[in-house]
Amino acid sequence: MEAYFDNSATTKPKGEVVDIMLKSLTDYYGNPSSLHKKGVEVEKLVKEARKQLAKSLYAKPEEIIFTSGGTEANNLAILGTIKSKKREGRKIITTKIEHPSVLNVYKTLENEGYEVVYLRIDEYGMISIDELKENLTDDTILVSIMHVNNEVGTIQPIEEIGKILKKLKKRPTFHVDAIQSFGKIKISPQKIGIDLLSVSAHKVHGPKGVGVLYIKKGTKIQPIVFGGSQETGIRSGTENVPGILGFGAAVSDFNNKIEEHIEYIKNFREKFKEKILAQVKDIKVNGHETCHAPHILNISFSGIRGEVLLHYLEQYNIYVSTGSACSSNKKSSQSHVLKSMKLTNEQIEGAIRFSFSYTNKMEEMDYAIEKIKNSVEELRMIIKR
Amino acid sequence: MEAYFDNSATTKPKGEVVDIMLKSLTDYYGNPSSLHKKGVEVEKLVKEARKQLAKSLYAKPEEIIFTSGGTEANNLAILGTIKSKKREGRKIITTKIEHPSVLNVYKTLENEGYEVVYLRIDEYGMISIDELKENLTDDTILVSIMHVNNEVGTIQPIEEIGKILKKLKKRPTFHVDAIQSFGKIKISPQKIGIDLLSVSAHKVHGPKGVGVLYIKKGTKIQPIVFGGSQETGIRSGTENVPGILGFGAAVSDFNNKIEEHIEYIKNFREKFKEKILAQVKDIKVNGHETCHAPHILNISFSGIRGEVLLHYLEQYNIYVSTGSACSSNKKSSQSHVLKSMKLTNEQIEGAIRFSFSYTNKMEEMDYAIEKIKNSVEELRMIIKR
Ligand SMILES: Cc1ncc(COP(=O)(O)O)c(C=O)c1O
Ligand SMILES: Cc1ncc(COP(=O)(O)O)c(C=O)c1O
Repeated sequence: MEAYFDNSATTKPKGEVVDIMLKSLTDYYGNPSSLHKKGVEVEKLVKEARKQLAKSLYAKPEEIIFTSGGTEANNLAILGTIKSKKREGRKIITTKIEHPSVLNVYKTLENEGYEVVYLRIDEYGMISIDELKENLTDDTILVSIMHVNNEVGTIQPIEEIGKILKKLKKRPTFHVDAIQSFGKIKISPQKIGIDLLSVSAHKVHGPKGVGVLYIKKGTKIQPIVFGGSQETGIRSGTENVPGILGFGAAVSDFNNKIEEHIEYIKNFREKFKEKILAQVKDIKVNGHETCHAPHILNISFSGIRGEVLLHYLEQYNIYVSTGSACSSNKKSSQSHVLKSMKLTNEQIEGAIRFSFSYTNKMEEMDYAIEKIKNSVEELRMIIKR
Repeated sequence: MEAYFDNSATTKPKGEVVDIMLKSLTDYYGNPSSLHKKGVEVEKLVKEARKQLAKSLYAKPEEIIFTSGGTEANNLAILGTIKSKKREGRKIITTKIEHPSVLNVYKTLENEGYEVVYLRIDEYGMISIDELKENLTDDTILVSIMHVNNEVGTIQPIEEIGKILKKLKKRPTFHVDAIQSFGKIKISPQKIGIDLLSVSAHKVHGPKGVGVLYIKKGTKIQPIVFGGSQETGIRSGTENVPGILGFGAAVSDFNNKIEEHIEYIKNFREKFKEKILAQVKDIKVNGHETCHAPHILNISFSGIRGEVLLHYLEQYNIYVSTGSACSSNKKSSQSHVLKSMKLTNEQIEGAIRFSFSYTNKMEEMDYAIEKIKNSVEELRMIIKR
C-alpha cells in the first residue's frame, strides 16, 4: 500500500497530461514561432491550452500568461508591477505568511527602498482586515495576499479585500497567490476584483515547470524577462510547449469536476481528522476551524519531531511533509508560518502537513492512520526510555 | 517525404529524451525538495542530469544552473551580472547581431543609464577584434558575444576574445550565448576563459522550456527570480524535472558522438550547398566562407520573397525559416543580422535559412533540392508574367 499525502508539495500528473505531453514531444515538436505548418499547428495547440486555462479561471485567453512556474508567476506579478508603477509610490502590503517566492522578492525590494508592510496573522493563520485598512494609503501600489496558505491551509478573505480595494480612489494593484487554492476552491479573479493571480500546474496534476499569471486586461505590468516577445511580450522565450499543453490538459475538466472534487477532498479531510483525533493522543490541529482549504491538514504531534515521524512513515510508503516542501533548503529551519501563529516550539517542531487530492483512496486513509498511530506510540516510547 | 531543415528553430526530441520525461511524469513525480524518498529519488535524478550537462560543457556540476530556457539563461547572465557589479561600472560590450533575448535586455538597460556598445560586423557577419579592443575600458563590466549567429551561422572568435580579456587588469565578466553552437562545436568555457555561457535544450534534440547557464565558479552574479532557493539560490522555483531530465538525456552521448555528428552535418551542409549552387540560379550564400557553424546555411534567392518560398516549400513538407524563428513576431520585419551585414533589400527579403541536424537523411536533401529548384523557377516565372 502507498499513501501519497503530500499533494501540496506536488501532485502526480494525470493520464491526459502525460498523453498530450508525449504527443508534443514526438509529433508536435515545431516551434510555435515558426511560420510553416509545423510551427502553426503547435501555435494552435498552445492557443487551445490558453483557452483551457482561461476557462478554468473564468477569464479571457488574452489574460493568461504562461510562465515557468508559480515562483516566476509571483515574481512577475510583484516585480512587473513595481517596475510599471515606479512613479506612483513605494509602499506594498502583504502578509507575514506568504510563500518564499513572494517574501524573498520583498526582501530585495526593501533593499531598494520600498516599504513593505507584512500583515500579522492570528493563531489560526488569519490576517486582520482592520490592519489592512489602516495601512492602505495613497502611495500603496500593490496589495499581495495569498489565497490559501500552503502550510496550514487557512483561507484569507480575498473577496472582502477585493471589495475594500474597489472602493478606493487610488486603487493599488491586487495580486493573489492562488497556487494552493486553484482547483480546490472556485475562483473568479474578475468577480473578486483581482488584477494578478498566480497558479502552478504541478499542484493540480499537471507537470512541474509551468505556471500562469492571470493579468486582468488593462493592468499595468512590465516584463522581467526580455527576448523574442512571446506571450505578447510579457514573457519572452521559446514556449515550454509540452508543459503548457500538459497544464491545459490538467485543467480541461476543472469546471465540470471541481464541485465533485471539492466534495470528495473535503469529506476525505474531515474523516481523516476525525479518525486521527480519535486514535492518536496528544495532537493538535493547526489552522482555522472553518476557513480552511479542503485539502490541507496540519497537525502537531506533541513530544515528537515532525521530521522523525516523516521518515518513520516513509518506511510504510506514506508521504507527508513538515511545513512546506517548496523550499530547497532541506535543513530544518522553523516554519515562519507556524511561528507567526505563535505556536510553541514543541508544536512547531512536531508539525506534519497532510495534503490530500481527489486521487487519494479511502483505504489509503485507513492504512495511514493505523501506521501513524503505531509510529507515534513507538516514537513516544523511545523518547521516554 | 519530409525534410525538416529548421533545426536552428527547434529540434525533434530524441527517443531517450522522451523516455526519461515520460518516466518522470509517471513514476518520478516527487518534488525534489521533499524530505521523503519520493523527493530524494527525484533529487538524485536531477543531480545526474546536472552531471551530464557539466560533462557536455567540460565543467563542474556546481557550475550548471538550470533555467526555463535559453532566453532566461541570457537574461540571468546579463541582468544578474550588472546587479552584482553595480558599483564597478556601467559599460557593456556586445554585438549588433545578438539574439533578441540579449538585445532586448540591453534596450531596457540603456533606459536605466547603462552604456551599451554594439560592435559592428562585416559583410560576412564577423566582428572586428580591433573594435572590441578599442572599446575595452576600465569601467567595462560585461562583454557578451554570441558564439554562432542563429541566422547566418558565422562563428565569432571567442577564443581570441577570451585571451584578450584574460590579459586585462580589470577583467569584465565574459558571457557567451552558445545556444546555436552547443552540440555543433566543441566548447570548453573553462579553457576559453568564459565566465557565463548559455545553452538551450530544444536546439539539441531536448525539450522546449529548459536551458542552462554555465556559471564559472567564483563568478559574481545575482538571481533575477527569488523564492525557495532552488539551484543554490541562483534560480528559485520548483524544478522543471521532466525538462531537466530530458535535457540530461539529450546531452548524455555528446562527448562520445560530437565528432561524428559534426562530421556528418558539415558534410551534409557542404553537399547541400554544392548541389543548390549547381542547380538553382541567381542565389547567394550569406555568412562567412570558413568561420561558419556546420549546420546553418543562409541563402538569398534573388527576385523571390523568402516568406513566399517558405510557404511554397511547406506544401512539400519541406520546413525552412526566414531569418530567425525565435521571435514570436510573425510579421515580416527585416532581419537585423542581414541588415548589419549590409545586404541589399532584395537579398534580405529573399533570404532563407536552412538548418540541419545529424538526424537529416541524404534522401531528404535530394528531395528538397529538386523541390526548391522547381519552386524557385515557378515563382520566378509568376513574377515575370
Ligand atoms: C503558495 C505557494 N506559492 C508559490 C509556490 C511556488 O510555485 P512553484 O512550485 O510552481 O514554483 C508554491 C509551491 O511551490 C506554493 O505553495
Ligand atoms: C542564439 C540564440 N539565443 C537565444 C535563443 C533563445 O533560446 P530559447 O529558445 O530557449 O528561449 C535562441 C533561440 O531561440 C538562439 O538561437
